[in-house]
Amino acid sequence: MAKPDIPRKAVYRLSLYHRGLQRLSANQVSTVSSAALAKAAGVKPTQLRKDLAYLGHFGTRGLGYSVEALSEKLTDVLGTARLQPVVLAGAGNLGAALLGYGAGFAREGFEIVAAFDLESGMKRVGDHEVEVLPISQGPEFIRQHGIKMAIIAVPGPAAQEVANTFVAAGIQATLNCAQAPLQVPEHVVVNTVDLAIELENLSYFIR
Amino acid sequence: MAKPDIPRKAVYRLSLYHRGLQRLSANQVSTVSSAALAKAAGVKPTQLRKDLAYLGHFGTRGLGYSVEALSEKLTDVLGTARLQPVVLAGAGNLGAALLGYGAGFAREGFEIVAAFDLESGMKRVGDHEVEVLPISQGPEFIRQHGIKMAIIAVPGPAAQEVANTFVAAGIQATLNCAQAPLQVPEHVVVNTVDLAIELENLSYFIR
Repeated sequence: MAKPDIPRKAVYRLSLYHRGLQRLSANQVSTVSSAALAKAAGVKPTQLRKDLAYLGHFGTRGLGYSVEALSEKLTDVLGTARLQPVVLAGAGNLGAALLGYGAGFAREGFEIVAAFDLESGMKRVGDHEVEVLPISQGPEFIRQHGIKMAIIAVPGPAAQEVANTFVAAGIQATLNCAQAPLQVPEHVVVNTVDLAIELENLSYFIR
Repeated sequence: MAKPDIPRKAVYRLSLYHRGLQRLSANQVSTVSSAALAKAAGVKPTQLRKDLAYLGHFGTRGLGYSVEALSEKLTDVLGTARLQPVVLAGAGNLGAALLGYGAGFAREGFEIVAAFDLESGMKRVGDHEVEVLPISQGPEFIRQHGIKMAIIAVPGPAAQEVANTFVAAGIQATLNCAQAPLQVPEHVVVNTVDLAIELENLSYFIR
């Protein structure tokens, strides 16, 4: 299936709607108005209707959207119908926090299938133990299992080299949680989570 | 000083320029072209010039921007001239990772001045120990020290209650790292860091 050409910001909002629908579904709600779904996602109803138009025709005037049908369509478009395998580089505090997200990630369609670090061995996460493999084995694992997504949570100075070897092994999309910018080839997508930048953005809005 | 009215997305990009300038400064570079600075921040030069226009007149045609002058102006506008005190709620793996960012945050103008958790006591972070206070003491601390910013990294189900008590005590801006949406009064700004949403966004771009 060719993917519809949806702008990146709209894809983000689709994820928010998707999550809102999952909550409604968990609460046995079967239909939802565009106003209510927009509110749950923190956007304006006009924005929501514009975003959902990328998916084709949904909803009946006066009746709202079918929670199940819209949720399925979004799952399909966002590519999370099957659990998407993800590898994690870096098993420090942040990496351990990510490993602890297990159930949260699974709900959204992701699974961390292997964790790599310079320090390999068993790592305590919450109330269970997780095996951390030597980071040198990362590329081979990615190749063998055809993994396409990685989370990079190694210390900043090590991030670029990890990204280079992982991308060479087949990674197409990276969530960069290291405190360093990453240079990657054009076919690779990087989302960066930079908490200091988020704080700086907030500080502007403080009176 | 009245703050210029800058759109939220532009404030984000100003943070990126700010960081790029800090790197240039650390490398003894004294002037930079708009093309080079735009590239470092991953935006188009036209976007950069538009964003910097919010700050007034900068740069000389053919000579580029003074790294020092532009950096100072951005520091001023972004409100990070002095270290901004931040409180942290939640000292699990993610909280510990945030506490470990000490130097990284300080470089951007922030300091976690206190950490709170249900489980108080000394917590090992990297190679030193940090005192974690009982979360019930959070509001009093916020009031006494006039803290305006908080990072919430508690488990999802606990996040809203923590936000309520912290906001009632004076918090105006919150970085929400809990896996739950937060409802706050209109005068409070929330930035949400949701790693599952970032992954979902990435997965759309995988072929």
